[in-house]
Parts: sequence; structure tokens; C-alpha cells
Amino acid sequence: MPKYTKTDFPVENVCRLLEPGPVVLVSSAHKGATNIMTMGWHMAMEFQPALVGCIISSANHSFEMIRKSRQCVINIPAADIAATVVKIGNSSGRDIDKFDEYGLTPKPGRHVRAPLIAECYANFECRLVDASQVRKYNMFIFEVVKAHVATSPKVPKTIHYRGDGEFMISGANTRKYRRLFRPEML
Amino acid sequence: MPKYTKTDFPVENVCRLLEPGPVVLVSSAHKGATNIMTMGWHMAMEFQPALVGCIISSANHSFEMIRKSRQCVINIPAADIAATVVKIGNSSGRDIDKFDEYGLTPKPGRHVRAPLIAECYANFECRLVDASQVRKYNMFIFEVVKAHVATSPKVPKTIHYRGDGEFMISGANTRKYRRLFRPEML
Repeated sequence: MPKYTKTDFPVENVCRLLEPGPVVLVSSAHKGATNIMTMGWHMAMEFQPALVGCIISSANHSFEMIRKSRQCVINIPAADIAATVVKIGNSSGRDIDKFDEYGLTPKPGRHVRAPLIAECYANFECRLVDASQVRKYNMFIFEVVKAHVATSPKVPKTIHYRGDGEFMISGANTRKYRRLFRPEML
Repeated sequence: MPKYTKTDFPVENVCRLLEPGPVVLVSSAHKGATNIMTMGWHMAMEFQPALVGCIISSANHSFEMIRKSRQCVINIPAADIAATVVKIGNSSGRDIDKFDEYGLTPKPGRHVRAPLIAECYANFECRLVDASQVRKYNMFIFEVVKAHVATSPKVPKTIHYRGDGEFMISGANTRKYRRLFRPEML
């Protein structure tokens, strides 16, 4: 399992890790129990406050835990734990304790009771700030109130879902188009 | 410029192209004018109807065109036109005709007046079905009513934004974790 040293990360920059579309793990805590789910449908909504919209199906065990506790942690796994990410998405917290079952380490957050997953590259502590779209769309709007990001590697290999059991693993980064940006767009 | 042969694509599967997080081009038409914007903040919201949530800043010239026409096309560019994608995002339809300026070909849609961009790998014709979150979050909820996807290549190299002028180009696809899926999760 990977071990990371993490540093505080400006919450207004969390979109830089979410916008490329990685599969994330959402951890939650409610009434003494914890859980983890795998999630692919999310988007950055605002820089500051750092808002993230997420679709969490009401069929998930995490749905009520997050709705009631009004908190979660969005964790970004790298490709080295891809098999674990798939297993988490294909099992239910109704049946097992996923931290135990998959050998993951819960770490206490600074602002939320939901646990951070130590084996993930980044951890974003989130508060549910708008539940108005939950009933209609299963859409939760979170504010990232604290972000922890690994100091190394600088760019992780992230996992991107393509449906039907197929994943894309992130490729090379390039800054060669940067000269085409207007300064205010950077 | 790339040339694609396209085929009809089931709208309930458009999430397979959007979920990995590619930068997209949003084309629109209103009162005889067309425009294109570059967009990174989007997510799949439902399979059927095929819903997509998008954040479009009110500072964009496209904002009012889409809000008033209640239509757009979400186009997925591949890495071969990455420089054009950046230029589109760094110029305004207030000043130029982007189809002309960047040598892109508008194609008529089947269900919307907004033009498809022929040089993009995929084109999703969209109707604005819920504008209730526009004022608060600049969030538009679209239904994809028709999808056109290139027959080749099977998997395009897509462009993923990492902020500060940096992009990730999609890497290899893998099906090696497929055996870990429960059948109903595929």
C-alpha cells in the first residue's frame, strides 16, 4: 500500500485535481460507523468557496450516512490501488467494514468526523452546504473546507472510468499550450 | 484538421465519454449568431434521461446565448486540436466568429439549432431542461437528446485540464479490473 507525506493545499485549487475527472473514494461517518464508496460523477462548481457537485445514488449505503451527517471526505486514489477502488465500488457497507476488509487506514480529519483514507494521494474534507437537489437528482453540493495533498509524486497516475468495467489511466502532462493562454485565464 | 465518420450513439451511454473528465467545446446559436466556448466543469447526472450538469460562467459570451436559446451542443475534441481548444477558451465570441477564426466546420444538428463541430470526435445535442440552478451556481442541467460519435479511432486521446495552463492527455485504457465487477455494476 502506498504511503504519502501530505501538506496543506489551498482549497481554491482543489479543482485542479478534480477537473481532469479522476474516480474518487468518498468516505463518511455516521453513528459510530464508517464507510467508503467509489464515485465518478462529480464536478468543480466554484473556486472560493470551493464547491463540488456530486451524484450519489440513493441505492448506496453511503447516501443516508452523508445526507444525515452532512459531511464526507473526497479522497483521490492513484492507479496503484485501482483494484481496491474497484472492489470498494462493487461491495456494500451494509455487508462489510470497508476499511478493515481492504486494509485501508482511516485518519482523523481536521474539520469533519468522516475519516481520511491515508492510502489516497489527496483528501478533501467536505461539508454538505446545499442538499436542495438531493431529492430530484441525488446531487450533493459540498464545500471543501480543508485539503491535504501528497508532496510526492508531483503528478499522480489517476484512474478515470470509461464504463463497462474499462478504465483510462492518466497520461502525460503538458505545459506546451500554456503560451496560448491570456494571463487572466491562468 | 481531423475528419471523422460518425454514427448514432445511445444517449444513455454518453457518460462513458464525459465521466473521464475531458475538456469539451460547447457550441451554441442564438439570433443568427453562433459561438463556441471551452468548458471543463461538467458531470454526468443520469443515464436515462441522459442528463449532464455544466458550470458556465456568466462572464462567457455563450452564457446568455445558451440561457436564451435553451440549447447547445457538447463537442468532445481530441488532442490533435488541443491548440485550437485553448485558443477558443482564450478568446471571446464578442470579438470574433470562432468557427471562421479557427477554421472549424459547423454541421446542422438533428434536434437543435446549435451547430455540431465536425472536427470533434463526438457531438451531443443538448436541450436545457433545468435552469433553476443558473442564478445561484451558473449551473445548467442539459438533456442529451442525440449523440453522434466517431467510428474510429475507438478510443480518442482526450484533453484534461489541470489548471495553470497545464493539461493531461489521456493515457492507456485497461480492462484488467473488469473481472472484479459484479455483473450488475457493468
